[in-house]
Amino acid sequence: MNGSTTNTCKVLINGAWSDSAGSKCFQATNPASGEPLPDSFPVSPWEEVEQAVEAAADASQQMRGWPGERFARFLETYADRIDARSDELVERAHQETALPASPRLKDVELPRTTNQLRQAAVAARDGSWAMSTIDTAANIRSMYAPIGPVAVVGPNNFPFAFNSIAGGDFAAAAAAGNPVIAKGHSSHPGTTRLFAEEAHLAAQQTEMPAGFVQLIFRTNHTDGAKLVSHPLLGATGYTGSRRAGLVLKEAADRAGKPIYLELSSINPVFILPGTLQERLDALADEFTASCLMGTGQFCTNPGVVVLQAGDAADRFVEAVASRFNEASIGTMLGEGVLSNFGEGIGTLRAAGADLLTGGQPGGGTGYSHRNSLLRVDGDRFLANREKLQTEAFGNGALFVVAANADQMVEIAESLEGNLTGTIYSDSTGADDELYDQIAPALRQHVGRLLNDKMPTGVAVSPAMNHGGPFPATGHPAFTSVGIPASLHRFAMLACYDNVRSHRLPAALGDKNPTGTTWRQIDGVWTQENAG
Amino acid sequence: MNGSTTNTCKVLINGAWSDSAGSKCFQATNPASGEPLPDSFPVSPWEEVEQAVEAAADASQQMRGWPGERFARFLETYADRIDARSDELVERAHQETALPASPRLKDVELPRTTNQLRQAAVAARDGSWAMSTIDTAANIRSMYAPIGPVAVVGPNNFPFAFNSIAGGDFAAAAAAGNPVIAKGHSSHPGTTRLFAEEAHLAAQQTEMPAGFVQLIFRTNHTDGAKLVSHPLLGATGYTGSRRAGLVLKEAADRAGKPIYLELSSINPVFILPGTLQERLDALADEFTASCLMGTGQFCTNPGVVVLQAGDAADRFVEAVASRFNEASIGTMLGEGVLSNFGEGIGTLRAAGADLLTGGQPGGGTGYSHRNSLLRVDGDRFLANREKLQTEAFGNGALFVVAANADQMVEIAESLEGNLTGTIYSDSTGADDELYDQIAPALRQHVGRLLNDKMPTGVAVSPAMNHGGPFPATGHPAFTSVGIPASLHRFAMLACYDNVRSHRLPAALGDKNPTGTTWRQIDGVWTQENAG
Repeated sequence: MNGSTTNTCKVLINGAWSDSAGSKCFQATNPASGEPLPDSFPVSPWEEVEQAVEAAADASQQMRGWPGERFARFLETYADRIDARSDELVERAHQETALPASPRLKDVELPRTTNQLRQAAVAARDGSWAMSTIDTAANIRSMYAPIGPVAVVGPNNFPFAFNSIAGGDFAAAAAAGNPVIAKGHSSHPGTTRLFAEEAHLAAQQTEMPAGFVQLIFRTNHTDGAKLVSHPLLGATGYTGSRRAGLVLKEAADRAGKPIYLELSSINPVFILPGTLQERLDALADEFTASCLMGTGQFCTNPGVVVLQAGDAADRFVEAVASRFNEASIGTMLGEGVLSNFGEGIGTLRAAGADLLTGGQPGGGTGYSHRNSLLRVDGDRFLANREKLQTEAFGNGALFVVAANADQMVEIAESLEGNLTGTIYSDSTGADDELYDQIAPALRQHVGRLLNDKMPTGVAVSPAMNHGGPFPATGHPAFTSVGIPASLHRFAMLACYDNVRSHRLPAALGDKNPTGTTWRQIDGVWTQENAG
Repeated sequence: MNGSTTNTCKVLINGAWSDSAGSKCFQATNPASGEPLPDSFPVSPWEEVEQAVEAAADASQQMRGWPGERFARFLETYADRIDARSDELVERAHQETALPASPRLKDVELPRTTNQLRQAAVAARDGSWAMSTIDTAANIRSMYAPIGPVAVVGPNNFPFAFNSIAGGDFAAAAAAGNPVIAKGHSSHPGTTRLFAEEAHLAAQQTEMPAGFVQLIFRTNHTDGAKLVSHPLLGATGYTGSRRAGLVLKEAADRAGKPIYLELSSINPVFILPGTLQERLDALADEFTASCLMGTGQFCTNPGVVVLQAGDAADRFVEAVASRFNEASIGTMLGEGVLSNFGEGIGTLRAAGADLLTGGQPGGGTGYSHRNSLLRVDGDRFLANREKLQTEAFGNGALFVVAANADQMVEIAESLEGNLTGTIYSDSTGADDELYDQIAPALRQHVGRLLNDKMPTGVAVSPAMNHGGPFPATGHPAFTSVGIPASLHRFAMLACYDNVRSHRLPAALGDKNPTGTTWRQIDGVWTQENAG
């Protein structure tokens, strides 16, 4: 199998693993040892990226009008192939990310990943995601249709579930009928290559066009910007750092190409006074587990906790601090994550937050940093709100201790856009009045509002919103998790006005294309035929 | 009634007509005479815009959680008030735009406008637009919710139906539960003021917050960019020139604020050989009527016609040219439109198109330009495709005569994003093979694909897409016409995860909030209760 041998500089372009035209290669690092891993991977020059875009555009043309069934078959075949190679995937991802092989990689993230692919297959086959809308009187019909080649740029922290060639964006883009150009994350190229090998074989097995799934491992920043703004590109899905994401956003925006970004989020958690009285120790346990899970490297990691000043708040802070001191220290995903985390803590301290514990690198295996907690009062937070909302991505959090209930509300109003916002309140109703003031304020600044539950879990539910106002994402009306909603990012609205009936796509014909597809016909959602 | 008297420099800010703080005023011009109209209107300085944004943000906070019924009542009251003042509106709009009082303004555009407001009211009351999605097992629930203050910047060519304080964007933003800051178009400020007076009174009558509807007439460009990127703003709806729109887009994009733009479109019409044989004269009539309607000042005006070279094509071109010569010459909306049209024709000629007829200003009343036609062959079009897709907004069109059928397909593939694309084919099936090649290519570049019908009509249908790929609009997944779909532009996705049932918005509770709202519950679209 080409590409699976070590020390090659091959990329997957236009249906074949071929030598990269680039002269530069890079290696991944084992975060647990700090040592480079043996395989090397190419940095693709522009002409290679351009080839990929052109091949994807060809694939797009070939697939025009294909039924969802074709994409479903690919997705299912691919999911089966991943399952068959799961041991190798888990081992490689563990080497490249230092995430625990079990339960995290093997028992949680890999099943989630194949589950996403299979859910996407169901959505593609069913076709309800297209929201076909039929006005029989006017003979105007519209639906969501494939947008064209999609570039997917994946993050470092989910080598499987958000992998650029296997994760949620990939599944959504493919299920919506688009070819994908995956740009792998440099921290886990070996894992990404294994996926790409299986994606390629699954595509061959299900007779997809050559340019349907492609992989490049790395480009320079200029070429990344050229890719997302390429005239032949449909859209981009990006998950990663705010800095790199904003560069791509600017390029894509200028070209009028949709780009869906997941950038940063501090996921504020408001713990109201009553609930702190009611179950302080349980909350300290729950928060500690959520904040340190995966060494805090989750986009929904609770990075800010807002409390009302008082004895209970002080005791809660102490209880969490002692748990942070006792907890084991995980290995971070890489040297960059470690140094960024340190910088983030430095920014918070410079902005007036006091360090309660941690604050130094080391203490664990390989790239590690002590579990860290900071504290700032509400006045200072509000006075320096921008800096104090810096995301410190890792095993740490900031307590914001508000002077009183009104200030908690003011803090909720002052927040930037976040993926999540959480409120814990007591069971007797003592917190209800304050909840009713905080919740509407918080609501407007977050994609997902939670009660009594840490935000770290992101269920793959049709009702999930893994999104939120800028700078959490680039557009507050879209979610990157949850099927079928996540497919809409990679679609355009396609209207047919007075088009003769035999020329309509099956989804818009009078006859229900599957017998079970939900369509909106003359204002009524139905699985029946039209007319 | 404040604000209705002449020669005042008043703006509608925070629930009152007050003197503008600005020192500059402007007057509208009667396009039929070239003479200024008597009233003067203010150019608002930044502090006034800022006041409007803050008042709108206050309104947004006050309206959090309000049922759609509240917005429906406002919209219906407003529509009734507009009807009651229709004579004055028609007269003023006729003076300011030179569009015929009847049938255009009185019998077509005004009824369309109040119809849009009333349809938006129905959508707001019904609540199905929010696409409430409930996962009962996981207790995760999501819906589209108001995005916050919306700035609406309206165009010159529809003083009613796209008016910034009465048109489609206004109706959609208000129905979705948002306050609107309208920025009137400088060519019809008097019309806009009349609407604003009625909107203000309707808002008072239905007890909306002070900052719910506001109007400023003009700002400088810098302040326009500041408005669309303001931290308190939710989103912007813009319809107008590509140049001005791109400046706003850049500012809004940088701030991560959604901006929905309708920028430019040449609306290509492909007339296949068989249909030209079948009914050349009828097609020439149909095209001429569509292209010259409203002096060609429609965003869906057919600006490019693609034909296959041959005798029939030549005869069609001649037939249209003679009709253009015979047709009366309309008055354009203003001096700027006239000069831009002349420039557009100049650009097309410089790029290699030959002038067949027209090409000179004058010939009609006031600001006018001779009905104009140009012609270019397919080779030249493809060689200079960017320049030859310049929009010449007005009473003119470009014929592109392709060497053969393959070149027609190639032309379809080469098009920029457009609102519409049209294909005429014959009734016997002779054109079907060519249709099947052109349609998929054209489909990808247009929001609405038509058969056998000119694109000028834009029905307010739930299945309408008045949108399309850039540069026709800023995002190909949204429509600015069609209710309820147009409301989604002014919404964010709001998810509730594990939120206690008594705290959920009515739309997400187990009980159907109206008894008839469509919601997606555990994958099934239903009007029933959940669980």
